[in-house]
Parts: sequence; C-alpha cells; structure tokens
Amino acid sequence: MGIDIGGTNTALGVVDRNGNVLVKDSIPTPTHGNISQFIDDMSVSIRELTNSLRLLNPEIEILGLGIGAPNANYYTGTIEHAPNLSFKGVIPLVKLLETNFPELKAIAITNDANAAAIGEMIYGGAKGMKNFVVYTLGTGVGSGIVVNGDLVYGHDGFAGECGHMTIVADGRLCGCGAKGHLEAYCSAPGMKRTALELIAKYNASTSLLAGKSFNDLDSKMIFEAAEKGDKVAIEVFELTGKWLGMGLANTIHHLSPEAIFLFGGPTAAGNYIFRPTIENMETHLLPIFKNKVKILPSQLKQGDAAIVGASALVHKELEKHLN
Amino acid sequence: MGIDIGGTNTALGVVDRNGNVLVKDSIPTPTHGNISQFIDDMSVSIRELTNSLRLLNPEIEILGLGIGAPNANYYTGTIEHAPNLSFKGVIPLVKLLETNFPELKAIAITNDANAAAIGEMIYGGAKGMKNFVVYTLGTGVGSGIVVNGDLVYGHDGFAGECGHMTIVADGRLCGCGAKGHLEAYCSAPGMKRTALELIAKYNASTSLLAGKSFNDLDSKMIFEAAEKGDKVAIEVFELTGKWLGMGLANTIHHLSPEAIFLFGGPTAAGNYIFRPTIENMETHLLPIFKNKVKILPSQLKQGDAAIVGASALVHKELEKHLN
Repeated sequence: MGIDIGGTNTALGVVDRNGNVLVKDSIPTPTHGNISQFIDDMSVSIRELTNSLRLLNPEIEILGLGIGAPNANYYTGTIEHAPNLSFKGVIPLVKLLETNFPELKAIAITNDANAAAIGEMIYGGAKGMKNFVVYTLGTGVGSGIVVNGDLVYGHDGFAGECGHMTIVADGRLCGCGAKGHLEAYCSAPGMKRTALELIAKYNASTSLLAGKSFNDLDSKMIFEAAEKGDKVAIEVFELTGKWLGMGLANTIHHLSPEAIFLFGGPTAAGNYIFRPTIENMETHLLPIFKNKVKILPSQLKQGDAAIVGASALVHKELEKHLN
Repeated sequence: MGIDIGGTNTALGVVDRNGNVLVKDSIPTPTHGNISQFIDDMSVSIRELTNSLRLLNPEIEILGLGIGAPNANYYTGTIEHAPNLSFKGVIPLVKLLETNFPELKAIAITNDANAAAIGEMIYGGAKGMKNFVVYTLGTGVGSGIVVNGDLVYGHDGFAGECGHMTIVADGRLCGCGAKGHLEAYCSAPGMKRTALELIAKYNASTSLLAGKSFNDLDSKMIFEAAEKGDKVAIEVFELTGKWLGMGLANTIHHLSPEAIFLFGGPTAAGNYIFRPTIENMETHLLPIFKNKVKILPSQLKQGDAAIVGASALVHKELEKHLN
C-alpha cells in the first residue's frame, strides 16, 4: 500500500506488483496537529481498503506500507518539523503505524521525491538502471538520487534536496529563506515569477498572460499561452530551461547518472520545457558527459504517481531483507 | 604501492597499513606518447622499490598497485583522452600492468580526487565515516564522493567532477571550454584571476600583488600578502570563499554528507579560506543542514598525499573481494 501525505489531503492506495492502483481512498490531512487522531483515521482507511479487496479476492495480502511525506526521514521513520503540516516537532510515524499493524512485513517512510525515484525504479522508466536521478517539479523542486541501485539518504536521511542548489548568486528569495535556489526559478510558482518579470520587462500588455493576476496564474496557463505563440510564455520556458539545464548539469557533474527523469505538472509542456533544458544543460557539461545523459519524462502516471511511488518503498525494503 | 601519474612526473611509493611511505621514487611522465615505454619504466621502478625493501625485510609483501591519474576510469581500468598527458585515446593501463605483475592481488586506477577521498577514508580524517566528500583545490578543482562507505563512480566511472558545476551563469571561461565553472574561480589559477580583477577594479597600485605578473603570481604569494594585511589579497580569499561556499552548499543539498574535506595548496591559508567558505556555505543551506556539516582540512600529509591516496585504493579493492 502506498500513502502520500500532502499538506491538504492524504491519499492511500493498494498497488499491485505491476504498479496498478487496485483501490484507493483520500482523507483530509489534519490541520489541528493531533497526530493520534490522524493515525486512527489512516488506520481505519487502511483496514477498509484491505477489506474491500478481500471481498473480491480473499487471498490478497498487503505486504506493507510505503509512505511519502514532506521532511520525512527514512533512517528514523519520522516526520521532522515539516513546515506544510500541522504536526509540530518530530513525529515517529512509522513506530505509531507499526503498533497498529504488527502483521505487516515492512513499514517505511521517505520524502515525496525519493518515493518518486523508487517508483521510477520499480515500476517506471528506470527499471534496470543503477544510477539515475528524478527531479520533481511542482509547488517546489525536489529530487531523489539513486547510486548503485540504492537511494542516497546521506548522513542524516535528508539527501536529495537538489531544488535548493544555488543557481543565481544573491538571486530570488526561496521559500526556505535563502536566495537564488533552483526551486525559486523552476517550480510552478517560479515560472509564474518569471512570467511577471518578463511582462514587467517588456511592458507586455498584449501578452495572453497580462490579464491574469499573480494569484490566478498557473503553469498550465503559461503552457497554453506558449502553444498559441505568446512570446512571454515561450520565453518563460526558455528561461526555465536555462536554469534547469544548469541545475541538471551540476547534478551530472556530481553523480554521472545514466538518466535524469523529470516529473510533475510543468513537464506536461513537453518540448517547450525539455528542449531548452537539454540544450542549456549540454553547454554546461564537461566533454566526457556531453550527449551521454538521457533527460526523460517520468513514466509514472501523473495522477497516481505519489501513491505508486510510495508503495514501491515496500518492495525496496523487502528486497533489502532478502540480501 | 601508490602511483600518482601527473602531467610532468609520476611518483611511486610503498605505503604501509598506517599510511606511512616506506620508500618512494619519481620518474618523468613521458611527453612522447609511447605507452609501452612508460609501462616498462614504471615496471622497473616498481621492481626496484620492492627489492630495496626486501633487502631490509625479506617478508615484506606488495599487495597491489593503486594508481591515481587524470581522466582515469575505475570501471574499465583505462585512462581516457586525458588532456594533460601525451597518450592519445583510451589507454588500458590496468591491463598492461597486470601482464607485468600477475602475482599482485589487486591493480586498480581512479582519478586523483577519488584517490584522495579513499586515502582520507583509509588513513585520514574520514576514518569511520560512511558519507563524506573531498574537494581538491590545486591547478584544477576535483572531488571524490563517498556514499554508504563506497566511492561514487556513477554510470560510466566519471562521477565526482564537482569542480565543473556552474557557479556563475555566463561567467569566466573554464579550462574545459564551458563558462562559469567553480574551477575557474576556486582553483589556484582561479585565485590569480580574482587577484587581477580586483587590482584592475581598484586601480590598486599599492597592493603587494601589483608588482607581480599573472604568470609569476601564485596562491602562496596571495596568502603571504593577506597575512601582511594586503586588502586585495584578503578580498581574494573572501571572494574565493563566497564561490566555494556556494559550491559546497550545492554538494550538501545533493548528498547530505557528514563532512567535506578540503585538500591542496590553497587550504594552507587556513582561516583566510575556511572562514569565508563556511560562512557563505551556511547562508545557502536549507535549515535542516545548517551548522551540521563539518568542513575540515584534509588529514593526509600534503607531500605524500597523492601516493598515499592512490595506495588506499588497493585496500578498498581487497575489502571488496572479502565481501
């Protein structure tokens, strides 16, 4: 079973060995900070999903729970000081769920981008790859890094925060408080910021985006405007690709991966985002890396990807116990 | 035995289990591109060093050869298109040496910065650490990355080129042909470039560095001028630290290491370089990483470090065969 804990909702689903979601449910992520209530709500949903499947086939076995959550620490099984969740401090989520589900073979947690990377490896485009990276572009920019077939957690469990590498010295304010991070440029809100800067720069009252407020604008609108030939929208993608290409090149110089997968809403724009990203990335690379590293769209289905990715964590845990 | 192949000389030395160099030799690295001559010269030196030790103690056994060289590929045992060496194309160095020394338990090659990282792990400050990074500052900027106790080679053997991450978009020309790479700012030649820029900016005819030509200047002179209170020299270190701090923060966001070790000539300047580097690094970090990652000078003795680091590769290989 995969569980994706988001700021507003928590999605739960039973996933088969091929990455198909058999049944799913969604419960509100509490805003009251009461963790024991949340564990109870999740436990009810987990049992209901299990029972509904067993009515269809009594032989179905739930192997474990894989959980994706912001600020999740794989090593300790905790969620630590997550700014977008109402729970304060360090929450021992894995331990609390183990108390309710002692019969399960594995319960593990990691952050959403790491879950996406494991999902890509178990069910998606990274099957058979030993060294690859996933970048998730959305409200923020996250990443999951796989080296020698294993996710990189680093010394303390928090590795894979490529979205917070500095792309522009003393640049835009990032949500984390630092300046010039990739996330401030290449997340969906970052693309909105770029659109506004360009409208201001060109005094572009005839742009299709000029009638939208900052709060109304989203990355899908920018894509639609680009498809209609809007110059501002097209330049938003060119600049986003310039910054993202720099970021990907930095990641390649660190890790020399076989491929980098791009996941999330803005990637739906296809070559509007992929072409400038790849072109700019190549200009930043050492000759030994040029025309060698594949930049690919994620093969996980957008809608269920978070659940599917989180569920893959269970398979990864069981593999580890086998070794 | 550790062997360090440099552009001008090749240093060879027998290293004991504690990282002491027992005997060493140096031969010129050929400029004629004749690899079989070079293999012969190295083989003579290896046998002479072995024999000289056996005169002192007939029980001494050479376990293997660890080689550090530019553009070395650990996976294939080759040196590939090294711009600073006279050998063209792909040189199967490990295979050639294995033919001459079939009795040895391990012969392996990697690049100089990876050798420094393994040296730090086997003999130096990283003993017992599972996740750390070594940055080597010299003619270039190299790096060796250790994750879960193993060196990261990536998909093709070339991981750990942190010196080529982009620090300034469209910035200074790097030796590799790209623009704005860390190496163009934080290598010893990069520091000279900064010194010249500052002298030009301030019209600083009274600087202690203003009487030196670009070709005469070196990073030691900049350090000595800084110690005498020279404002240009001090600002060179401040700016170098600003750029290096950005680079280290990017590495931390990727890998969350326990420590990053700095190795090489410019690190002799101590706090002139460490203080601004650490200060600037901290400003770029996510809160979860702040005041957590140690930035330390390498514990390998400067003079013999390349030989000692390369020799450590043999121990790492033998460990692997045990598992």
